[in-house]
Amino acid sequence: MDAETTRSPDLETLVILLGFGKEAEVRDRLKGMHPADIARLIENLDEDVKPRLFALLSPEQASEVILELDDPSKRLILRALPSERLSEIVGEMDSDDATDVIGDLPADRAVTVLDRMEQEDVKEVQKLLRYEEDTAGGLMQIELVAVREDETAREAVEDIRAKGEEVGDLHNVFVVDRHQHLVGIMPLRKLILVPPETPVSAIMERDVVRIGVEVDQEEVAQIFKKHDLVSLPVVDAAGRLVGRITVDDVVDVMEEEASEDIYHLGGVHAEESVLSPPSWSVRMRLPWLLVNLATAMLAANVVNLFEGTIQALVVLAVFMPVVAGMGGNAAIQTITVIVRGIALGDLTFQNSRRVLGKEILVAVGNGVATGVITAVIAYFWKGLPVLGLVVGIAMIINIFVAGLMGTLIPLALRRLRFDPAVASGVIVTTFTDVTGFASFLGIATLLLAYMR
Amino acid sequence: MDAETTRSPDLETLVILLGFGKEAEVRDRLKGMHPADIARLIENLDEDVKPRLFALLSPEQASEVILELDDPSKRLILRALPSERLSEIVGEMDSDDATDVIGDLPADRAVTVLDRMEQEDVKEVQKLLRYEEDTAGGLMQIELVAVREDETAREAVEDIRAKGEEVGDLHNVFVVDRHQHLVGIMPLRKLILVPPETPVSAIMERDVVRIGVEVDQEEVAQIFKKHDLVSLPVVDAAGRLVGRITVDDVVDVMEEEASEDIYHLGGVHAEESVLSPPSWSVRMRLPWLLVNLATAMLAANVVNLFEGTIQALVVLAVFMPVVAGMGGNAAIQTITVIVRGIALGDLTFQNSRRVLGKEILVAVGNGVATGVITAVIAYFWKGLPVLGLVVGIAMIINIFVAGLMGTLIPLALRRLRFDPAVASGVIVTTFTDVTGFASFLGIATLLLAYMR
Repeated sequence: MDAETTRSPDLETLVILLGFGKEAEVRDRLKGMHPADIARLIENLDEDVKPRLFALLSPEQASEVILELDDPSKRLILRALPSERLSEIVGEMDSDDATDVIGDLPADRAVTVLDRMEQEDVKEVQKLLRYEEDTAGGLMQIELVAVREDETAREAVEDIRAKGEEVGDLHNVFVVDRHQHLVGIMPLRKLILVPPETPVSAIMERDVVRIGVEVDQEEVAQIFKKHDLVSLPVVDAAGRLVGRITVDDVVDVMEEEASEDIYHLGGVHAEESVLSPPSWSVRMRLPWLLVNLATAMLAANVVNLFEGTIQALVVLAVFMPVVAGMGGNAAIQTITVIVRGIALGDLTFQNSRRVLGKEILVAVGNGVATGVITAVIAYFWKGLPVLGLVVGIAMIINIFVAGLMGTLIPLALRRLRFDPAVASGVIVTTFTDVTGFASFLGIATLLLAYMR
Repeated sequence: MDAETTRSPDLETLVILLGFGKEAEVRDRLKGMHPADIARLIENLDEDVKPRLFALLSPEQASEVILELDDPSKRLILRALPSERLSEIVGEMDSDDATDVIGDLPADRAVTVLDRMEQEDVKEVQKLLRYEEDTAGGLMQIELVAVREDETAREAVEDIRAKGEEVGDLHNVFVVDRHQHLVGIMPLRKLILVPPETPVSAIMERDVVRIGVEVDQEEVAQIFKKHDLVSLPVVDAAGRLVGRITVDDVVDVMEEEASEDIYHLGGVHAEESVLSPPSWSVRMRLPWLLVNLATAMLAANVVNLFEGTIQALVVLAVFMPVVAGMGGNAAIQTITVIVRGIALGDLTFQNSRRVLGKEILVAVGNGVATGVITAVIAYFWKGLPVLGLVVGIAMIINIFVAGLMGTLIPLALRRLRFDPAVASGVIVTTFTDVTGFASFLGIATLLLAYMR
């Protein structure tokens, strides 16, 4: 997106108006705005002003804005919000969103908020709270329109009239038998085009993509993509229809998963955003830097072993960062392709040996090419032919290790059920740093007599 | 997704059957499979077998499979396919997909293929070819159902009956005036619930989100997300309805954009996948490694300036990789947050100063924390208090530079209309390598007398 074209509304004006206590005027300005825009606005406010602006929203608006907020702002506002008002706001939400908000509250707060909500909404939320947040059950909403297979098209239309108003995004009507088992799906267009007495069972599609409540959200997203769906019925173990997932929730999941991979590859917490408070960001990023510090010390220890060699030929220190750096870069290239391949489902256990073979070939090709170039540069720069040879060989070894470990480590982490995006980088670059310094300085030690 | 749960169909069996010339049997096995699964299967075949398997698909199946293939396989198969059969396959596609395939062909091939297609399809493709691939015009399809505002609900149903069968994914009917200007949208559910004589203008929604043909696809995706859409009408400069974009295409765009950012941050070409041919991967990754080699040589030159200092105190070589490496890691953290913030639209020009302030605070916090720890380690390990001081100060300076440049460089690249994900990493880590070595070895040179 072009950053310049999305002018956020005039932040300064609102802050000034709030400062002068002109709350009615602020309320008026907020009325016509899109919830996502209000959320962006709030995220950019100072911490103490955020809840004050949020308090000016109608319950309906507030229920939509809160879903669009980033996590730090959401937490802040939820903490500041009186329970009574929170109950009112949550009551406006679809069951899946209400459950997400309630699920994020501390237990005693959740009970207080639920106590003040309508009995029917409470039941729905309690039902949904049983599912893990990142499964089909955690994503689904209870609101849906289902008709019985033995109804006529006319009766189905009556059902839709009765329930359709409270169910948003109605694209498909689900068809169930008398025991609530999902037996078909009926696109609305079909209902329009048949005579009213046609039985539902004659026009429904029986071949329905469905998903179990326990399935992981990444798989849910892949099913939407594969079948180009706009909504997906969710069934329990007995095949009974218990909810539906709509495509807008899946779009959010996909973005969340992609962000997570990007952040984890970069050594950043998945919830960080450009607007996270600095102290929070320090707390989240520092542990990662300390892990890297520990591995850097490991590499420093390897260099330490060869102090004598460096003392004898100090020009080696000049090429150390080149060998280690190139191994690191080659490793990151391989890890990026492998981690993304795992996330997209392109890399499976069937083809992992083939992929490893490819990465080894690529590593040999790139290692030889950059190794030879570096050897030539080192030779002409320093006039030491054997130095060139040592640098070149160390580079080839190191890029080979980068390709090998860059493939094996993410696969192993995956196998052990760790997120390969989180730890692959630090583990693999530790390997490349250690083998880079060890091979470069080790070979140099062996050939020291020929290098001066 | 869990890699283990998606068993791909039995590759070996198919290859053996093909080897024995049992093509009828292979054809049978392919018949019941989902296009996406067939595509995964083909991607895993050897290059010479790919076109042979593809040739066994029906034109309809082939038209869906080709859209699911990764780029290298798609290119290979398109090259091997006789023009006549390609015309037949493209004729089965929606206008947007047909245009994408034709647009990827060499000009003379495209003309040959279009020559053999039906006149009506050719016109649609020619219309769509005028738009850039990554704009709303490039994403949209011409197939849609539009009714006139002065029709009745009954007439609208007739229109849908007439055109609805050839238009897939029909969720909304668009409403136009007599000059094809988009004036409203009518959800199908409304059409079901009103008496047949109701005029369309009485039930349509007038407040329609729409988009111009020229708008960039990233912005299209953001609009879908913001408004939770399943389809979006596309209008020309005069406000006339010219096409529609459906959510399944936007889901693909989002995944494409996320992959692109991940790949570019990792220094990999956006089209690379785990199954790309090794020679192609070498050609794509090598230039990036050479750029990094050039910048590593720049850093080596800085070290070279201080050869005398290292000769005098060789323990400095041990801590060089620690200082440079930590700066690099801190830089990547900042770049990740900034690049993702730009992509998600969280980082705008309005709040960039505030974000810069945050990153500087984070850098100071993390720099001081890791600097002090490293200083203490260096002191206890080597017993040289001033060495600890020098390492610590260099680390603080370097992490500060990482935060500053990690924020400014992506913003500047964005401003200059370059993709910040591509070049930020190499530019910023060049800065951190150079300042890391320069500050560490520079300060050490000044304090050399106190360090032994």
